[in-house]
Amino acid sequence: MDTGRRLRAGALLRLFGNWKPGRRDIASSIQGHITQLVCDGRLPFGTHLPSERDLARELGVSRTTVAAVYDRLRASGHVETRQGAGSCVARGPADTSEVATPWYPVGTHAEIDLTQAALPAPTELFADLLARAAPAASRYGEGHGYYLYGLPELRAAIARRYTDRGVPTTASQILITTGAQNALALSLAATLRPGSRVLVEHPTYPNALAAIRRFGGNCVPVDLEPAGWDCERWREAVREARPDLIYCVPECHNPTGLTMPEDCRARLVDIARLAGAALVVDETLTDLTLDEPSPAPLSRFAREGMLLLSIGSLSKVFWGGLRVGWMRGPEAFIARAAAVKATLDMATPVLEQILACYVLAELDAIVAPRRAQLRANRAALMDILATSMPSWQTATPTGGISAWVRLSAPVATRLSEVSRKCGVVITPGPLFGIDGSFEDYIRLPLTLTNEMLPEAMRRLVHAWATVRDTRAVEPPTLVATV
Amino acid sequence: MDTGRRLRAGALLRLFGNWKPGRRDIASSIQGHITQLVCDGRLPFGTHLPSERDLARELGVSRTTVAAVYDRLRASGHVETRQGAGSCVARGPADTSEVATPWYPVGTHAEIDLTQAALPAPTELFADLLARAAPAASRYGEGHGYYLYGLPELRAAIARRYTDRGVPTTASQILITTGAQNALALSLAATLRPGSRVLVEHPTYPNALAAIRRFGGNCVPVDLEPAGWDCERWREAVREARPDLIYCVPECHNPTGLTMPEDCRARLVDIARLAGAALVVDETLTDLTLDEPSPAPLSRFAREGMLLLSIGSLSKVFWGGLRVGWMRGPEAFIARAAAVKATLDMATPVLEQILACYVLAELDAIVAPRRAQLRANRAALMDILATSMPSWQTATPTGGISAWVRLSAPVATRLSEVSRKCGVVITPGPLFGIDGSFEDYIRLPLTLTNEMLPEAMRRLVHAWATVRDTRAVEPPTLVATV
Repeated sequence: MDTGRRLRAGALLRLFGNWKPGRRDIASSIQGHITQLVCDGRLPFGTHLPSERDLARELGVSRTTVAAVYDRLRASGHVETRQGAGSCVARGPADTSEVATPWYPVGTHAEIDLTQAALPAPTELFADLLARAAPAASRYGEGHGYYLYGLPELRAAIARRYTDRGVPTTASQILITTGAQNALALSLAATLRPGSRVLVEHPTYPNALAAIRRFGGNCVPVDLEPAGWDCERWREAVREARPDLIYCVPECHNPTGLTMPEDCRARLVDIARLAGAALVVDETLTDLTLDEPSPAPLSRFAREGMLLLSIGSLSKVFWGGLRVGWMRGPEAFIARAAAVKATLDMATPVLEQILACYVLAELDAIVAPRRAQLRANRAALMDILATSMPSWQTATPTGGISAWVRLSAPVATRLSEVSRKCGVVITPGPLFGIDGSFEDYIRLPLTLTNEMLPEAMRRLVHAWATVRDTRAVEPPTLVATV
Repeated sequence: MDTGRRLRAGALLRLFGNWKPGRRDIASSIQGHITQLVCDGRLPFGTHLPSERDLARELGVSRTTVAAVYDRLRASGHVETRQGAGSCVARGPADTSEVATPWYPVGTHAEIDLTQAALPAPTELFADLLARAAPAASRYGEGHGYYLYGLPELRAAIARRYTDRGVPTTASQILITTGAQNALALSLAATLRPGSRVLVEHPTYPNALAAIRRFGGNCVPVDLEPAGWDCERWREAVREARPDLIYCVPECHNPTGLTMPEDCRARLVDIARLAGAALVVDETLTDLTLDEPSPAPLSRFAREGMLLLSIGSLSKVFWGGLRVGWMRGPEAFIARAAAVKATLDMATPVLEQILACYVLAELDAIVAPRRAQLRANRAALMDILATSMPSWQTATPTGGISAWVRLSAPVATRLSEVSRKCGVVITPGPLFGIDGSFEDYIRLPLTLTNEMLPEAMRRLVHAWATVRDTRAVEPPTLVATV
């Protein structure tokens, strides 16, 4: 499958982090790196790989070694080669583990998955809300079922939540979307042109970067480290890049867990306004602040004549499988985004939206125990990190579902590759950055409870020791996750 | 709201159909035409309208008249004007009718809506299936809820349906999407580049045209009239246009209701293959053939080395509010489309997919009574058209949910404008075409039962008489729809 994206050998090597050919089994090491890059999405399906000759030269290894690597990658299904067309990234072996246990997706993997920063649904409440939503669903079934803007009662309920947060909002300013990602995609599709520059926090949410690129934008990173949002830096970045759009995650930022201070908010809005840039504010995690309540939303500072879009969803506060999100914006823009939505998926499912109405009505009761659980998980994670990995540095996240962990060496890609062999899957930092940044970071989720956390850390520590010692990997005995 | 699309006066006039300034109330006539074009989507939100001077000159009316029209359109909310930036299409007045009756979207409008070719859900069965799906939903709630490719059991069930139709298929060749529109969008996003040429049947489904344009494609029409698919014409069109993709609806084509003959199918696939063009086959309506069973699916004729994608959904056979569709294609392409999906909406909702599993298990039982009802509706529509509008010509649709009605004069846009005032909303032909074609067609749905059909036709006949006589419109007494 040819996406037309051709990767040069030098660019591939940069994605390897600080890889150097060791003495033992170089082919396996190269194969592991490439497999990892395919699995975590940094080498998208269809990417043209460099020729064997070029890659061999760049890596400083023999062509025979690279040929062997490509052979193995073909055998594992991660690469396909066509006569005359070179080698492309393929999907990898079919994900048969999913199929093995119908109706029951959790607990079937021997691997502990630390890549999903997502909580399960509150299952009893879920069943209860579903039962309550069913009669309304049947009544809606008497109609045609297409609601381009969303169900009126859901739009109104979300507008009320904004109003309650101090941002007077009418239902006509709300567009219901199929999750927050859909809201982001619509925001981008309705504003960007090919070559538009988009300012993003650096690091930031990987699927935001992918969506910006999908709609023709060029991501311009503004560093968050070490002190969070530096308004002067943003002002300069705007002056230099003259962006069409600024994307920010001001609460419980993913992956850092930072929350933008109150005094920065009005200033950032002002910077966007003066630059004539649209400002897309991702509030997906706003309800999951763990210490202080959220500061005033950025939309409080919006002024006439600027385009400020807030996006949110129930995926993080209720359940990722409930794909209901929204966009809040000027009514005329909402109409424009809806016209885009008609081309992408026509409308968000009705049943989901009815359920979302019931979830919203109970949201405070849903959020309170989740916060308590995340606080406990956070404490446990920070404790175990301090004890077992004292050389790593982690600022305590102020909210959200993840911690941004700084390693004591820039080996995140290699660590994630070795971790997988040790039975724990982690997300390496460069996924959250541009051009291979954050090789000294990994993201860990706050979703593991005390039961699972020790085993996950045991495996991670083992992987770390392996990476530091660059010894061969001896996988520990696997314990099935429950 | 500025989409950057600027419409010249001449182009706007072409969209008016065969409009000529009459003697009475020219401003109202122009206003009505523009409102209609905004309402049916041919003037998308954000389109820049021509200046008053240019439009006045093109229409052959005074500038004062056009100024009055723009004033009224601003007052009605269909146009907004900014100092120095000219006039743009706005959304129009907020759709408050939706909000009036929470939880019960049907039967609240005094207008009879003939624009939605969609049936209600089989409501009793819907409630039953929902109750049966609930326990599985709760179990899934224990997991993270993200299934980029779709639930394994749904993928397997859809693969089985293809296999049963004579196209051996594995679950790994299926991507679950948020309705067929989502499947189409993913197909296009993963194949088109800016300027790609896409061959389409002419007329065709309006949202397909919009999606092709959204992803940078140029639509190249291949006429279906008068005799359906003419393979020689397709071969020539491919030779001339050298398209990257061909989009076709071979069963129960929307809007014509035509079904592609058996002998044409292998040939069309061959034409696509030889041209190296991807072939996207929209089978959304395949299960709703009303006379003969569907011929062999086009995918039966696919050969190694070509990209043939089939898309389908449950929206038409079960309910539009259930937004579950799919794409069938080569496994490597499915992976590529899934990577696009991650940027557009992450995943299709889990609850919808579980319900879809139950719907699929009952599909034959669901489809049989729907077909019977559509056959009865079709007979009633053809009868009443023959009786009350003998000058119109309608080929009996072989399936699907709509009839393509040829008027005896090219006045579809005007007729749709007047119809609205008479209490019945219809879709004018040009919505299904490129560059203002099909001004002598309207689409009528097969969804009206004997109860509603006579009243809908009474209003339509009245509108027709008004258009033909170019007399002032006297709205008939409205009867609330039930």
